Amino acid sequence: MKTKQQEPRQDPEATPLGTRERIVRTTSRLMQRQGYQGTGVKQIAREAEATLGSVYHFFPGGKQELGTAAVRHGDEEFADILEKMLAAEDSPATAILVLTKVLGEGLRDSDWLDGCPVTSTVVGTAGDSPGIQEAAAEAFARWRALVADALRRAGFGERDAAELAYTVISALEGAEMAAQVARSTEPLEVVGRHLARLIESYR
Amino acid sequence: MKTKQQEPRQDPEATPLGTRERIVRTTSRLMQRQGYQGTGVKQIAREAEATLGSVYHFFPGGKQELGTAAVRHGDEEFADILEKMLAAEDSPATAILVLTKVLGEGLRDSDWLDGCPVTSTVVGTAGDSPGIQEAAAEAFARWRALVADALRRAGFGERDAAELAYTVISALEGAEMAAQVARSTEPLEVVGRHLARLIESYR
Repeated sequence: MKTKQQEPRQDPEATPLGTRERIVRTTSRLMQRQGYQGTGVKQIAREAEATLGSVYHFFPGGKQELGTAAVRHGDEEFADILEKMLAAEDSPATAILVLTKVLGEGLRDSDWLDGCPVTSTVVGTAGDSPGIQEAAAEAFARWRALVADALRRAGFGERDAAELAYTVISALEGAEMAAQVARSTEPLEVVGRHLARLIESYR
Repeated sequence: MKTKQQEPRQDPEATPLGTRERIVRTTSRLMQRQGYQGTGVKQIAREAEATLGSVYHFFPGGKQELGTAAVRHGDEEFADILEKMLAAEDSPATAILVLTKVLGEGLRDSDWLDGCPVTSTVVGTAGDSPGIQEAAAEAFARWRALVADALRRAGFGERDAAELAYTVISALEGAEMAAQVARSTEPLEVVGRHLARLIESYR
């Protein structure tokens, strides 16, 4: 495992379109199911249909840089879902309730394999991979900011919005884990109802 | 990695006291920090000061059996804490609030390395290690049962108690993860206050 941390040097416009993106998506999907430690660079290359040379060309920092990119990809993916759902409902409480249903269905449809890609990647890297840990912290912070923004737009006070966002994102993360392990959508559904109730209690 | 799943054949009374327990504790601690995939049987043997032969003697199923034992150990450890805290306070809401403080302090004292050993071990084993997944599901179910019992003793209805327990355990899991990644006790403190508020709203 290479530990050198570098920013990608490539200009995405100057490289064959899609290779880097394919490597990132493959890394994210593999680490989502197998964790960071269980995923090797050779497997990533094979499943992304890229040469090992091409993987190291885009990610000279090796597995740590791949893990960081995977976490950022998971960050963006969930931020998109969160943003759309919060925009689709006037009430943030209703949006969170709908979101827990969508998360539960997605988990069930993947035969309980695809939990949160950020959590799956960062767990087990404690202390060893500051880049991955920071990217995960940024992901959680961004998701919280989206929830807090929606709450503020709905008229909640600054501090209530910020604090509720902490609990919404933490409880969703924990419920997704519980649902995956129990192979049941129930933890997500129950947590969704409770989060909606908690949010409404601040109105 | 051996995939054969077997129950330990040993009678703990008949074996040198402490060796099996030392192996289990070492496995739990290593998987808590490195995850299941990042922990090898040789490292477990070395750090438990046991021979590899002795590890396979106690755990003929190899790493999967070690992982399952580690999850059960984490289950018991947290169940003990939870039981003591819930017994020490008349109000389950207060007990949960105290618990989040204790969890946050423990995490900070470990330099943010020691998150939930059950979560750390089960993540990344999706689909591959049914024994570990089942042991993790049992752990979460047992912790929920302890919270639900305390709520019932405090006068909460059967269904409210069961549902609140789901949210309490899920939110604690998620907040511990968020606290670890952010290197801050804040997610746990905020979630503790919100859980107390949610519980009190059912009175």
